[in-house]
Amino acid sequence: MLRLYDYLESGNGYKVRLLLHQLERPYERVELDILAGQTRTPEFLALNPNGRIPLLQLEDGTCLAESGAIQWYLAEGTPFLPQDRLFRAQVLQWMFFEQYSHEPYIAVLRFWHHAGVLEDHRHELDARRARGEEALRVMETHLETNAFFAAGRYTIADIALYAYTHVAHEGGFDLSGLPAVRAWLERVRAQPGHVPSERG
Amino acid sequence: MLRLYDYLESGNGYKVRLLLHQLERPYERVELDILAGQTRTPEFLALNPNGRIPLLQLEDGTCLAESGAIQWYLAEGTPFLPQDRLFRAQVLQWMFFEQYSHEPYIAVLRFWHHAGVLEDHRHELDARRARGEEALRVMETHLETNAFFAAGRYTIADIALYAYTHVAHEGGFDLSGLPAVRAWLERVRAQPGHVPSERG
Repeated sequence: MLRLYDYLESGNGYKVRLLLHQLERPYERVELDILAGQTRTPEFLALNPNGRIPLLQLEDGTCLAESGAIQWYLAEGTPFLPQDRLFRAQVLQWMFFEQYSHEPYIAVLRFWHHAGVLEDHRHELDARRARGEEALRVMETHLETNAFFAAGRYTIADIALYAYTHVAHEGGFDLSGLPAVRAWLERVRAQPGHVPSERG
Repeated sequence: MLRLYDYLESGNGYKVRLLLHQLERPYERVELDILAGQTRTPEFLALNPNGRIPLLQLEDGTCLAESGAIQWYLAEGTPFLPQDRLFRAQVLQWMFFEQYSHEPYIAVLRFWHHAGVLEDHRHELDARRARGEEALRVMETHLETNAFFAAGRYTIADIALYAYTHVAHEGGFDLSGLPAVRAWLERVRAQPGHVPSERG
């Protein structure tokens, strides 16, 4: 059976959990407490030298890291990843956008809120908030004329962007002025097999 | 003809240029000066709402953003991107690693050096340097037992990681204690059709 090394509060972990649920793929979940250093033990570093979850372990023991790569691997050959070459590149474009221009601002501010360490990062907060707001505006612009991010339908690009956008308010981001983003969040929630992030 | 919106000093642009040279694909290059705001004009934002280079414009006018997505699109069906499902996911794993755990530290410190704004970011420098060194150690660990990053051969994962690793010293990173990384840099330079980053 597939084994997912995971942390329930992680949006990056949720991306994989949500996809596995929607694919109806059974898996074993191993919860690791990031804050307690459980992803930095010698045992875990032997599986993923980068010391991060999510990590997917295949039936033969092979480990795959990075939420985007795991999603791509699992979605191949399913409706969650289109076949067309340009559509596939557009799915990846939004997944790289999420990891580079969205997650480091929207997810990280939420994490600092939760961990109670905002004050330690006071010199970066304004810049991080501005970059996060910019990412949300880029999403709004796209969604004003598109129902989903790529291929005209729900794909792993939507899963990747949903994970931290739907909890952006926990990092202090205000979605009230972004009606297209809010309507898209509802469309994602309405997909068959959708599960909330709290469910392991 | 393909058109690449680019900035010659950008390693993200170089990834695409290097691949295009190795694929022997002709293209037109449009240089935009990031520092002069040329990627934030209304004209460019109409092509890429995220206001970043590299941006690839296809023959039919379609635009594709994000260096990783552009590389994937161009490499599909060529020796630079394997066919095997797991190998492809491993290529992506290292490309996401580069954009999330490597570029924001190694490329950004170099950019701050070049732009003369290190002092503006003095509160972040130690943390960014430590993360960059950690990324280089992860690479060293992998390369101690692997000649390339995925599929046992030179792929776009190597191109993605080469772009900023080979100029890491310009951001103050020291590769002298990383013999496997230095040997891999030489292997990448020895690939047919390799061109240095300064060449547009």
